[in-house]
Amino acid sequence: MTRTEELMDRRRRLLGPNVPTFYAHPVEIVRGEGVWLWDAAGRRYLDCYNNVPSVGHCHPKVVEAIARQAALLNTHTRYLHDGILDYGERLVAKFGHGLDTLMMVCTGSEANDVALRMAQAVTGKTGMIATNATYHGNTALVSQLSTRRPPIGGYAPNVRLVPTPDHLRPLDGSIEAQPEAFAANVARAIEELEVMGHGFSSLTLCPFFANEGFPALASGFLDPTVDVVRRAGGIIIADEVQPGFGRLGSHWWGHERLGFAPDIVTLGKPMANGHPVAAVVTRPEVMAAFREAFGYFNTFGGNPVSCAAAMATLEVIEAEGLVSNASDVGGYALRRLRQLEDPRIADVRGAGLFFGVEFTVPGTLEPAGELTARLVEEMRRRGILLNRIGRGGNTLKIRPPMPFGRSHVDFLVDTLSEALVSVPV
Amino acid sequence: MTRTEELMDRRRRLLGPNVPTFYAHPVEIVRGEGVWLWDAAGRRYLDCYNNVPSVGHCHPKVVEAIARQAALLNTHTRYLHDGILDYGERLVAKFGHGLDTLMMVCTGSEANDVALRMAQAVTGKTGMIATNATYHGNTALVSQLSTRRPPIGGYAPNVRLVPTPDHLRPLDGSIEAQPEAFAANVARAIEELEVMGHGFSSLTLCPFFANEGFPALASGFLDPTVDVVRRAGGIIIADEVQPGFGRLGSHWWGHERLGFAPDIVTLGKPMANGHPVAAVVTRPEVMAAFREAFGYFNTFGGNPVSCAAAMATLEVIEAEGLVSNASDVGGYALRRLRQLEDPRIADVRGAGLFFGVEFTVPGTLEPAGELTARLVEEMRRRGILLNRIGRGGNTLKIRPPMPFGRSHVDFLVDTLSEALVSVPV
Repeated sequence: MTRTEELMDRRRRLLGPNVPTFYAHPVEIVRGEGVWLWDAAGRRYLDCYNNVPSVGHCHPKVVEAIARQAALLNTHTRYLHDGILDYGERLVAKFGHGLDTLMMVCTGSEANDVALRMAQAVTGKTGMIATNATYHGNTALVSQLSTRRPPIGGYAPNVRLVPTPDHLRPLDGSIEAQPEAFAANVARAIEELEVMGHGFSSLTLCPFFANEGFPALASGFLDPTVDVVRRAGGIIIADEVQPGFGRLGSHWWGHERLGFAPDIVTLGKPMANGHPVAAVVTRPEVMAAFREAFGYFNTFGGNPVSCAAAMATLEVIEAEGLVSNASDVGGYALRRLRQLEDPRIADVRGAGLFFGVEFTVPGTLEPAGELTARLVEEMRRRGILLNRIGRGGNTLKIRPPMPFGRSHVDFLVDTLSEALVSVPV
Repeated sequence: MTRTEELMDRRRRLLGPNVPTFYAHPVEIVRGEGVWLWDAAGRRYLDCYNNVPSVGHCHPKVVEAIARQAALLNTHTRYLHDGILDYGERLVAKFGHGLDTLMMVCTGSEANDVALRMAQAVTGKTGMIATNATYHGNTALVSQLSTRRPPIGGYAPNVRLVPTPDHLRPLDGSIEAQPEAFAANVARAIEELEVMGHGFSSLTLCPFFANEGFPALASGFLDPTVDVVRRAGGIIIADEVQPGFGRLGSHWWGHERLGFAPDIVTLGKPMANGHPVAAVVTRPEVMAAFREAFGYFNTFGGNPVSCAAAMATLEVIEAEGLVSNASDVGGYALRRLRQLEDPRIADVRGAGLFFGVEFTVPGTLEPAGELTARLVEEMRRRGILLNRIGRGGNTLKIRPPMPFGRSHVDFLVDTLSEALVSVPV
């Protein structure tokens, strides 16, 4: 039995079936540094996928902050501590639109679970809307907003999943008509929820539509939708778990890039470079409505170690200029990828350090999911870790740690070029 | 403005209303070591409350494990890593009853949210039962099982909260009749759920009934209830977030002490000494039913740092003999507390390092909640941190870090004796 087979066997027995791994031949990672990962045999991989180690794997400043605070004190928010205040004040200063109150939790799922209930507390209604190709987390409530992972026991009647925008196959057939078409579907879903008596509480979306395949959408795309939601008295939840913290290069938050004002923002994965930290940011009256309706306390949420890890991560993003790096290197990556000549490449798109290549059957819009899957495996064989996304699984998802540089882009694109040659048309 | 007022003011603005703190005059904790905490003015407090820093605040072995692994690698379970396997195999070896599969998550709330859905996946039913004086967590689903923190939007129709057992006021009026009385109420709730068409999926309980005021219950107390649940084809979820990991002294798990076999066990707070780690342990067929029904993945759950923290915590519990210490010191505490003479003391009870004193209006069973609240404040004034629990808020909740020794008990009991004198009858 190989080492990999032995680990897979132990996993099956201990963790049960259907525990996801990447790759047909899963990789055992034992060490990380910056944008690099090493497997058990000492082989080095360029990490083009992991957004959680946002400022780089094992960044010494974050490690030191965790180690220092863990050795000093780790309690909870029922005692006073300035860690959550110093961090939180600095974090909310990064938001506009009156979004200046904070709740700290441990996972993006917890954040969205709270956000959905905040909207219910504010509106007094229960109806929830999301897109039909998304994922916002894994609690019982949040899993209602997913077609990728349908909830146990089926969908609740107060949920509507509307058609996602797309870049190559826009709603209503044109890029120009798509903003109004998306809004019209949201309006129809709201009407259905109201007719059924649930009423409308919230529209939740990733402002980069990351799981939907990150279609290129112009600033203002959501304006008609925001109008519809506002007129219906609903709440807009921006799930910034993937685009947030400067990854998109041009702005700190995906909603700023898309140009709209959410009522609630949820944060997660990259917030503390891998330490389990997540948060909800909202306006004071929304926070108050929730906190007065429900006696929320999260044991680990906002503990001093989590806050130290999050603060160090924020400081590194600023000190190392990672947002402008995302802009520069992401732009370079798009330019280089667009030079690839292959009839299977249907589109190259993205923003900052979240970009990808969409593959279709040449000359058609038919998603080339199998090709994309093969490319992912080929890239892993060649020392590059990435994955695929989108409804057809036909878009490479490239979302590396943010200290990613131009030389890494060169290695990535050169290798993709080789991989394309190795996979016959 | 005092330092405390300033922090409270910043909290109100940043975190919103109704964010719980302990004490009329909240304490700002800045350092912890073993069973001691220090406030910002340098004053030392004996921690008689916090079960999360299970092996002692800032235990050097746990801090070192976190620092070492954080500097080496922190990814997720989609890559292979032996950290989760080495820890998980060692953890499940501590369980009987075929409970040998594991899912790692980040919070006890996440663990219970999953456990409830596991029961639904296995039974195909949705009805859920818990006691009417409990708390199992804060997600939308789990908050259904709480009278202390009623859910936003009210209770779902598939939830039944049955009367809790009590020590001084037993169900059906006698300690002897109580096991059958509790089971009869569960049977009635099951019948109601079946008549309404929800069917019965799970009974969730803390095997120490911690939030209910930890009534003294004999081993075998749950036998009639287990029979009722088994006959109805339901699942028993033991929430070991409070009693687990040896705190009760006599056994590693509360369900072993109470002498019953749960189908699912949830773990949380003390699992990694404050690092956000939690888990679900169950039999393979229950795990498989959930994993096949729902594509669950938890980004932070089971990451190498969390596993290193949890492993170090487990090793310290064993290496320092903390379970037998809990038994010895807990027994000593009960003996010393029982020597206190005060007509307001109605009962002294507990197990291992989870014990307390119940106060009533002298000569009656009327809960003396206000007295108990005053005692909590008096103790804080005298350098001892603890709190109160139970339906009437009239039982001191004493649940210190597990390296608690006899000298700490002496300080605790001597101080309580003084506090009692200072609060007039």
